[in-house]
Amino acid sequence: MEVRIKKIDRKILKRAIEIALDGIEKGGGPFGAVIAKNGKIISESNNEVVNSTDPTAHAEILAIRRACTLLGTHNLTGYDLYASCEPCPMCLGAVYWSGISRVFYASGRGDAAKAGFGDELFYEELSISPEQRRIVFCRINDVDGNEVFKLWERYEKRIRY
Amino acid sequence: MEVRIKKIDRKILKRAIEIALDGIEKGGGPFGAVIAKNGKIISESNNEVVNSTDPTAHAEILAIRRACTLLGTHNLTGYDLYASCEPCPMCLGAVYWSGISRVFYASGRGDAAKAGFGDELFYEELSISPEQRRIVFCRINDVDGNEVFKLWERYEKRIRY
Repeated sequence: MEVRIKKIDRKILKRAIEIALDGIEKGGGPFGAVIAKNGKIISESNNEVVNSTDPTAHAEILAIRRACTLLGTHNLTGYDLYASCEPCPMCLGAVYWSGISRVFYASGRGDAAKAGFGDELFYEELSISPEQRRIVFCRINDVDGNEVFKLWERYEKRIRY
Repeated sequence: MEVRIKKIDRKILKRAIEIALDGIEKGGGPFGAVIAKNGKIISESNNEVVNSTDPTAHAEILAIRRACTLLGTHNLTGYDLYASCEPCPMCLGAVYWSGISRVFYASGRGDAAKAGFGDELFYEELSISPEQRRIVFCRINDVDGNEVFKLWERYEKRIRY
């Protein structure tokens, strides 16, 4: 898809990089992210995995969570994510679940790999079948999980997301 | 990889399903997760996306975060995840980042798709190149993100994760 990159997109992406740089000296990993709409910044975060002992505390996840808290919704359709580096599979999943419309980034997964991060490997692992992965993925066939979806379908107050 | 499934694995997986069922009536999505080690449960969670207006509040993410808070570490190597349904790409990414050793699950991504969830589609989207995806993914080539990784490599107090 052809994307028209505006001056403001470059400016906000540079802000994400600035956050990543500042974050390193605060003990964070080398990543920064910003959520914006029509060029207006809603939330920002650096990576806080080590400081918060939370493996999910990537810059993108935290920026998404902060934007959702501020806006009072789990849906960010129409919002853009700016990330200093291409989002990892976890953050990409969060982008899809949040409904974010556009993602702009500077470095790529290969650059992250050279700096010692697993992003590229994790993309490969996600693309193969569960049985082939390095981590054990085991479906227990004689335990039936589908009663959960049956109750969900019957539950009239359910809110789809 | 051949996995020996023990009686305790089935028991904990059934607990994850029970959490998912209870979660529906608390306003959560139809998913439950448990973190355990050697059959001992460390943390549990249902899906809280809608109630907490947080698109990342999947059962697996919350169970991982809780276990890490309780244990005071971002690293869950040696721990197992039991999920009522095959983890989505976001949660799978969290599994890799956390270092979890084994994942057991009951329903599959196809079952989640039939119940109206995007897991299967998101797996497809993650496997293709950023330019081909439904959401706009745009690398801005003339903004250099690599100064972040250069600072990271020079930063002596960095903690790799």
